[in-house]
Amino acid sequence: MTKITVVEVAPRDGWQSVREQIPTETKLALIRRMFAAGIVRMQIGSFVSPKAIPQMADIAQVVEAVLAEYPDKRPFVLVPNFKGAQRAAAAGLKEFTTVISVSEQHNLANVNCTVSDSLEQFARMRQEFPDLRISADLATSFGCPFAGETPLARLLEIVDAVVARGADSVTLCDTIGVAHPLQVAAYVQAVRHDFPQLPLAIHIHDTRNMGMLNTYTAIQNGVYEVETALGGLGGCPFAPGASGNTATEDLVYLLQRSGYQTDIDFPALLAAAKEMHALVPGNYSGHQININACAQEANC
Amino acid sequence: MTKITVVEVAPRDGWQSVREQIPTETKLALIRRMFAAGIVRMQIGSFVSPKAIPQMADIAQVVEAVLAEYPDKRPFVLVPNFKGAQRAAAAGLKEFTTVISVSEQHNLANVNCTVSDSLEQFARMRQEFPDLRISADLATSFGCPFAGETPLARLLEIVDAVVARGADSVTLCDTIGVAHPLQVAAYVQAVRHDFPQLPLAIHIHDTRNMGMLNTYTAIQNGVYEVETALGGLGGCPFAPGASGNTATEDLVYLLQRSGYQTDIDFPALLAAAKEMHALVPGNYSGHQININACAQEANC
Repeated sequence: MTKITVVEVAPRDGWQSVREQIPTETKLALIRRMFAAGIVRMQIGSFVSPKAIPQMADIAQVVEAVLAEYPDKRPFVLVPNFKGAQRAAAAGLKEFTTVISVSEQHNLANVNCTVSDSLEQFARMRQEFPDLRISADLATSFGCPFAGETPLARLLEIVDAVVARGADSVTLCDTIGVAHPLQVAAYVQAVRHDFPQLPLAIHIHDTRNMGMLNTYTAIQNGVYEVETALGGLGGCPFAPGASGNTATEDLVYLLQRSGYQTDIDFPALLAAAKEMHALVPGNYSGHQININACAQEANC
Repeated sequence: MTKITVVEVAPRDGWQSVREQIPTETKLALIRRMFAAGIVRMQIGSFVSPKAIPQMADIAQVVEAVLAEYPDKRPFVLVPNFKGAQRAAAAGLKEFTTVISVSEQHNLANVNCTVSDSLEQFARMRQEFPDLRISADLATSFGCPFAGETPLARLLEIVDAVVARGADSVTLCDTIGVAHPLQVAAYVQAVRHDFPQLPLAIHIHDTRNMGMLNTYTAIQNGVYEVETALGGLGGCPFAPGASGNTATEDLVYLLQRSGYQTDIDFPALLAAAKEMHALVPGNYSGHQININACAQEANC
């Protein structure tokens, strides 16, 4: 049975879009439920400026609590730059990921520097923290709101650049949910062909309802690590109602039904999703959190 | 370029779940927008008892108006029994579909008779209306809320029964959205193998967020006709928030991005979905009706 590692990113990519401050204790309670359901690798937040994302102002407390409680799990954070990496290392994390956009315009808009600057900071992180696991999240791997479809050659160039600078793994991110299955298959195949030893993950937003299909397509093309957010929480702070990430519980259900091993307790995960839905306001694109007695009714 | 016929079913499978009575003129205005966007084949309602589904009380008026305005389109209705077929024929329709469940328990719950009774009524319809196109919607083709997973042998038995009784086409319906891609591929391949001449369609509910994936899988396995509902409207009247059908606009976007021919004007279709979302209260699982300025924002 093929094992798929489902990486939970709701505490970062989901909660960052929530305007109302989520109490730290609520965050920790939800993180505990996700770990209890079998999640091992979880992006528990980001070391960013609280001015940019106030929701992450308590990230140091969250990291401290998680590290103390879960020595055998693999929590990690996202950092936008070298300063964030320093904070992550100082907090005692063993791994973090940094985000670099494949699209020049998106990198400028997202982290306020050129791709070349981001790559330089990545090299500094690698040099400064040789013992930490450092991943690269490649935003706009498939398409960009400013530049349109991402050329495969450009993606391969950036993968090469981060690999050359010592990335331990790379995540192809469909930041705005515009990838389609033929593109996902082609891009994943090309990256695997050119970098056969590189651990490769996928992170697909569900904006246009293609999250499950594209994530499944990546798996069928040899990706064994997928990033999803509990409840499908996410979306754009500037676009109420926009869909977010592919929902963890929906993907886990699909994988289990399709004969993949996930080591996740689906009922416990679904219960966690429903609890988050009840506790945290936001845009949820996951479908199963809304299923109740429906399955017992004939007219459904 | 492979042509896929996208059959719109929101006026039946979407609106039947809406408790508030939708004014007939609103229905017709939305139907007009869908036809204008390029839909050719549309399930415009059902000839059922208004006691069972009050929303369909005006079906005769809807049919009359559509037939008068769209002589070159292919509107059709769903009928649960012989009486409904008589009403459809009397209304002047050239085609209708009737629903028969593969699961005995579901057929009893859905149309209050045995599968054998439903097959007998189907034979009567065929005999009475030899010149009309009569399709069979096979509910619970993949799974049943009462009986669990549908055995392939049982599905093939029912397909054989309706084909033997003169069905012009068959639609495999995932009534409660429990099919998974391996099952869809296997069942579609088996039906195509055993009935190579039979026009075959697919109708997948999006309850567990697998609607796009399963519909796409069916297409990849040789199905050229797919049923979807504008906005993904649908769901269970007894389960507020339950997801409905696969959303037409999401599927059309996917198909166009994936190199299939649909002959549908996507922007016009999306505008129709947004209008329906604004006019008709209900559970919408389509994602794109919620996209606004998001694509222009960096943080999405």
